[in-house]
Amino acid sequence: MTFSALNLDELTAQRDRALSDYDALVRRGLSLDLTRGKPSARQLDLAAAMLTLPSGHTAADGTDCRNYGGPQGLPEVRAMFSRLLQVPVAQLVAANNSSLSLMHDSIVHAMLGRLPGSERRWADEPRIAFLCPVPGYDRHFALSERFGIELIAVPMDDEGPDMDVVERLVREDAQVKGIWCVPKYSNPSGVSYGEETVRRLAAMPAAAPDFRIFWDNAYAVHHLTDTPVEIADILALCAENGNPDRAFVFGSTSKITFAGGGVAFFGSSPANVAWMTGNTGKRTIGPDKINHLRHVEFLRDEDGVLEHMRRHRELIRPKFEAVDLILTKELGGTGLASWSSPLGGYFISLDVLEGCARQVVSRAAGAGIALTPAGATHPYGDDPRDSTIRIAPTYPELDEVELAISGLATCVRLVGTEKLLERAR
Amino acid sequence: MTFSALNLDELTAQRDRALSDYDALVRRGLSLDLTRGKPSARQLDLAAAMLTLPSGHTAADGTDCRNYGGPQGLPEVRAMFSRLLQVPVAQLVAANNSSLSLMHDSIVHAMLGRLPGSERRWADEPRIAFLCPVPGYDRHFALSERFGIELIAVPMDDEGPDMDVVERLVREDAQVKGIWCVPKYSNPSGVSYGEETVRRLAAMPAAAPDFRIFWDNAYAVHHLTDTPVEIADILALCAENGNPDRAFVFGSTSKITFAGGGVAFFGSSPANVAWMTGNTGKRTIGPDKINHLRHVEFLRDEDGVLEHMRRHRELIRPKFEAVDLILTKELGGTGLASWSSPLGGYFISLDVLEGCARQVVSRAAGAGIALTPAGATHPYGDDPRDSTIRIAPTYPELDEVELAISGLATCVRLVGTEKLLERAR
Repeated sequence: MTFSALNLDELTAQRDRALSDYDALVRRGLSLDLTRGKPSARQLDLAAAMLTLPSGHTAADGTDCRNYGGPQGLPEVRAMFSRLLQVPVAQLVAANNSSLSLMHDSIVHAMLGRLPGSERRWADEPRIAFLCPVPGYDRHFALSERFGIELIAVPMDDEGPDMDVVERLVREDAQVKGIWCVPKYSNPSGVSYGEETVRRLAAMPAAAPDFRIFWDNAYAVHHLTDTPVEIADILALCAENGNPDRAFVFGSTSKITFAGGGVAFFGSSPANVAWMTGNTGKRTIGPDKINHLRHVEFLRDEDGVLEHMRRHRELIRPKFEAVDLILTKELGGTGLASWSSPLGGYFISLDVLEGCARQVVSRAAGAGIALTPAGATHPYGDDPRDSTIRIAPTYPELDEVELAISGLATCVRLVGTEKLLERAR
Repeated sequence: MTFSALNLDELTAQRDRALSDYDALVRRGLSLDLTRGKPSARQLDLAAAMLTLPSGHTAADGTDCRNYGGPQGLPEVRAMFSRLLQVPVAQLVAANNSSLSLMHDSIVHAMLGRLPGSERRWADEPRIAFLCPVPGYDRHFALSERFGIELIAVPMDDEGPDMDVVERLVREDAQVKGIWCVPKYSNPSGVSYGEETVRRLAAMPAAAPDFRIFWDNAYAVHHLTDTPVEIADILALCAENGNPDRAFVFGSTSKITFAGGGVAFFGSSPANVAWMTGNTGKRTIGPDKINHLRHVEFLRDEDGVLEHMRRHRELIRPKFEAVDLILTKELGGTGLASWSSPLGGYFISLDVLEGCARQVVSRAAGAGIALTPAGATHPYGDDPRDSTIRIAPTYPELDEVELAISGLATCVRLVGTEKLLERAR
């Protein structure tokens, strides 16, 4: 029953049914929150033992982790994440609790100092532009906007950004200095970059000698299935293709251990790592190495990380399955919406009829269901089709997710039928 | 026996004795380090119980400290340090482990955004200059130099910077945008700013509408005596004098709990705090609140902090006393050196004859005694009199401090007598 095939009477009946369902929903007085990609309390409980670690204070090399020093972070915590983030230990930096900070600071240091390959500080450039595959992560966009960086949206398909568009813009415009990528289980579409996409990113000619790929591998080990997605090794491919300094790799344990108390990582070429640690050496006398040690004691090694992630999966997969089940039941075949079925990560991307996303989010708010603002998945908060809604199902309990998605589906039906009626008139 | 009053033969004899002592010193093959203001392992042991805290994960207001959020930091850790840092709780921000980072980022945000009162971003100013009371802290200078900030040395006396010089430069030069201050137990001279100095800093007219005092209160509770020095309240005085946004206050627990795993603070006017949290809100989804909670559980309250600092004092005061005793015994009355007797903080400032500091540091290195490079206490590493040496006695064990200072005194005698002989010829 594709709603666009209904006649006016049938559509009106569907709209009336949706309106009645919506009124009932509002009367329930819900207060549910699907806005942010936060782990739930149960997920955080998985790392409860970490609160009373470490049992000692000495690193493998004898370093007293309590004191100042060690700008690159503990070797053992870097070793634990080296293969998982596809960065050699010597080229990996372990920092404090936020990978977003490392992205921010990478831009700051490029603005106020010279990147390897830069002809001048970015602050002295007439214009700086970054490519933003969409839908994408709103904090990437907000961070860039704050520095006056121009954001250019690039469409995504199932293999990642449209590489024909990316290659053209990067080749033709020397002011395009970067691209934001979430290469695995992308926020919010769940797309993982295909090998050919990664290879083309690494190999493409760039007009800017200081072009950088901001490779935010936030969901490197955040699998929802038994067959983990593997992505191509961006650093190795950049080096092979004569662009060794092209990629900045970011990652963190925020969605592994504690969202607010994890360890963030920066990985890149030896030249970029020296540039980064040279800059951070002016900023701090070292990261919180006790937290590094705490993570090493708790997670032990690479297998320990993967084992721990399986426990997360047990908690969050039912929520993703519930979303898919309810959306299928309530909206399947109506043509009013389509949605992603991600193999990992933290989000489901819901696409509603063109021109309907803002209204759906507004209707949901009216029924006590908080969603990420429509448009947030696009630069400047402007989704030109006004159709993408990001669903973050991890934080609420399962029964709350079910209630919220069922309510959201009602809003999609209401706004969608109203839109079709409007078009039909 | 002032050496400058000796005749040539007497001086030569003293030089020969010093040379013989120095040769004996070199033969001992020492390896001692007085370079950095680091707490010793015994000091860090005082906070050993903190390694296995916190016992829970919930803040007083119910916040789950393990998750994202809380850009200003836990209210209870801010409350604990509010009076100690002379900043109202609402105007205090608790961050991650490094106050140097907060100073760095304050400059970054002023460079790339507009400070309250700024006419333009500092990056768009033709020139930015900071006043640097000397002797001062090398990391302040290095951080400023990295951003191309011009550093203007200002002499210090026992009450702080020479305010006639400061007032004139700040009044006449609109490109003077800041001043670095360590107002209590200053690094390295130990000077604490007098009330009149603080009042004049708060009240003086400034040509730059966005002039800022960088008030690095690093040693707020780091007393070496039973009669703690109190300094005037810079934020209150700035507000009283119609310059509410003039001061940025910094502090940390780096030399209270763990040097590498403490909590850093930023305090200022409501407008500056809103500016700071607005900027950091683009950079991170919040500080490590678990570490905040850990500090609250361990230190409990303001009295707990002061009690803990008394334990530090028991460990480090003997080291400061040993330095003074040995320098008095070896150099007292010779006129070859003078040194500070600080009432708190982490350093002793040793002044040798003009033109001798570099040679003394070099001679000490030759005898296996590492000192902070001569000149480090001045902008651009350039001490025009080449006479100030910073001594950091906290990190080595007491017997090592004694050995090192005794050796250092030998170097001062050798270089000093050589200098006097050179002058006499």
